[in-house]
Amino acid sequence: MTETRDPWLLTPGPLTTSATVKAAMRHDFGSRDKRFIAINRRIRERLLDIAGVRDTHVCVPVQGSGTFAVEATIGTLTNPDSHLLVLVNGAYGRRIAKICDYYARRYTVLESAEDVPNDTDAVEQALRTDPTLSHVVAVHCETTSGILNPIVAVAEITASAGRSLIVDTMSAFGAIELDANQVAYDAVVASANKCLEGVPGLGFGIIRRSVLESCAGNAPSLSLDLYDQWQGLEANGQWRFTPPTHVIAAFDQALAEHEAEGGVAGRGARYRRNCEILVAGMRSMGFVPLLADELQAPIIVTFHMPADPSFDFQDFYNRLSERGFVIYPGKLTVANSFRIGCIGRIGETEIRGALAAIELAINEMGVSSCAPAA
Amino acid sequence: MTETRDPWLLTPGPLTTSATVKAAMRHDFGSRDKRFIAINRRIRERLLDIAGVRDTHVCVPVQGSGTFAVEATIGTLTNPDSHLLVLVNGAYGRRIAKICDYYARRYTVLESAEDVPNDTDAVEQALRTDPTLSHVVAVHCETTSGILNPIVAVAEITASAGRSLIVDTMSAFGAIELDANQVAYDAVVASANKCLEGVPGLGFGIIRRSVLESCAGNAPSLSLDLYDQWQGLEANGQWRFTPPTHVIAAFDQALAEHEAEGGVAGRGARYRRNCEILVAGMRSMGFVPLLADELQAPIIVTFHMPADPSFDFQDFYNRLSERGFVIYPGKLTVANSFRIGCIGRIGETEIRGALAAIELAINEMGVSSCAPAA
Repeated sequence: MTETRDPWLLTPGPLTTSATVKAAMRHDFGSRDKRFIAINRRIRERLLDIAGVRDTHVCVPVQGSGTFAVEATIGTLTNPDSHLLVLVNGAYGRRIAKICDYYARRYTVLESAEDVPNDTDAVEQALRTDPTLSHVVAVHCETTSGILNPIVAVAEITASAGRSLIVDTMSAFGAIELDANQVAYDAVVASANKCLEGVPGLGFGIIRRSVLESCAGNAPSLSLDLYDQWQGLEANGQWRFTPPTHVIAAFDQALAEHEAEGGVAGRGARYRRNCEILVAGMRSMGFVPLLADELQAPIIVTFHMPADPSFDFQDFYNRLSERGFVIYPGKLTVANSFRIGCIGRIGETEIRGALAAIELAINEMGVSSCAPAA
Repeated sequence: MTETRDPWLLTPGPLTTSATVKAAMRHDFGSRDKRFIAINRRIRERLLDIAGVRDTHVCVPVQGSGTFAVEATIGTLTNPDSHLLVLVNGAYGRRIAKICDYYARRYTVLESAEDVPNDTDAVEQALRTDPTLSHVVAVHCETTSGILNPIVAVAEITASAGRSLIVDTMSAFGAIELDANQVAYDAVVASANKCLEGVPGLGFGIIRRSVLESCAGNAPSLSLDLYDQWQGLEANGQWRFTPPTHVIAAFDQALAEHEAEGGVAGRGARYRRNCEILVAGMRSMGFVPLLADELQAPIIVTFHMPADPSFDFQDFYNRLSERGFVIYPGKLTVANSFRIGCIGRIGETEIRGALAAIELAINEMGVSSCAPAA
């Protein structure tokens, strides 16, 4: 089979998808085709069901990468009177601040170190002392490090303070439970190509209907105006602008496979097992993960770079790549590191295969210790 | 073969693509993969070669539909000091004005009726009388009607007046010659899924390098900042944000097939023949095209709706769709009409098949005359 010759992508994305998801792209749909309109309706409803918010929220898809969807959601839900408290402990939180710069949205950053979860006490204090703060924007799993942020506590504090919560749950949606009864968000944002295992090219916001209804005229971008996009979809089931039909057909198939795997519980169980096998195997070779186990999301794991001068990351990367496993460089500013992902259409076999390839690579390179610098 | 069971899409897009273009999506590429970086380089260079501007311009791709690319190009190339003269004779010209509204760019609309080409005398006069006008924005082929605008004359006037030209050539690029020696544009914008016959999900701007170099800080949107996108691609060949890898792999294959067909000349010849056969066949049944032949681009043809009360468009559309041919409703404000496209992976066989299906449909419906209301 063709797709087994592709490398396994142990990265934060793009990820490995199933052969059946890719095969779903072998059709050309017209954008007004009844079957295509039905696919879109099914996808939007299924995403609401995964989130458990069909009665209160609507799902608005948008063309582009996950960042397009984050920008679109923030641009549509806020306006020049808004003041956003942006919780940052990595590149994706910083990117949200950058979006606010572009959109001239007032914001305040609350930053923790990249290996430290969002500081909930600081959130509480900020909301208490600054009444102009209207929104809290948090990143559920920050793939810069792989850390799981304390989203339930952040949500409780935000709700108690009567503010609006927007969660970038890009790399967690569909695999890590986000119970809407515990986390009262006005919007979550994710994409087709992370834990839902579709192909890249599509993101979505799941937005509280009563909030979105009041958002006409907010968005600074026509293409990224989710209010206008929602109105168009509600009117006749069609996209305002040419939809990525093949990407959408693949997403429909991916969501069917997500459901068949047992939804969030089943998908999350596979990823947690991938993560446990990965971390245990790497530890047994002497590698040291950045995060303590209780902070680690089962999405992507950051490892400290070994201090042994025989260890050269590019050489290591190439040796794994030649054996069919693609890993990822680090994105930390605090430590020299690399990352290995646990998500996408991979399981125990692929993780064990990657561990075997890693062991071969370090032996070939003559690395005697995988411990980081003290 | 699977793809022959899909309907033929005789629309302005999404369009029918070849089986080999769709098959190119059966691979998962990592975004840092050397092969994937090479694909992107090849696509960007090939697009410059098609335009014939490799020495002067750069190609900046962007995720999303064609409108995303139009918005991104306008947003990046203009700033609050700019004043855009927007030439409108259909929905896509009006959409450019709407983008200017969102971005708070100063603009003046020069509007012609939908069946009348851009008024070049009026462009000349406007540029002469208003020295604040900095840019002219034109639509090459306006698919609202299917009209070909006088882009060479517009370019000459714009260049003589020392202004900057941006052309939305979405539905013409790759099939209708746009000789850079005659048309001195600072930017043209198009997408993967029109005459280049890739799948939807990707657009691009071809932008004069010396102009783009001075555009840092212009764009009102992070996701749609083509200066930043360009800088990222130039730095390491990688996209700033997750690229639609499968759509890009399909585009690479589509460009190889475009070259194999003889580039712009070969692709354009097939579409012109499609258009001639379509118009002649429709005329022989009594249908009347909106446009005189000399105004008609070989992209999509608008026909007046027959006045015969037996002709019901939805019934007509359904009968064609059941026979495997998808046509398109009209978008005109000036006349009741429908449209049939000539582009995508279709040729004489499919056009003749569509004409046969149309003849059967009007006979079944008991339509005695296809003439429009007088």
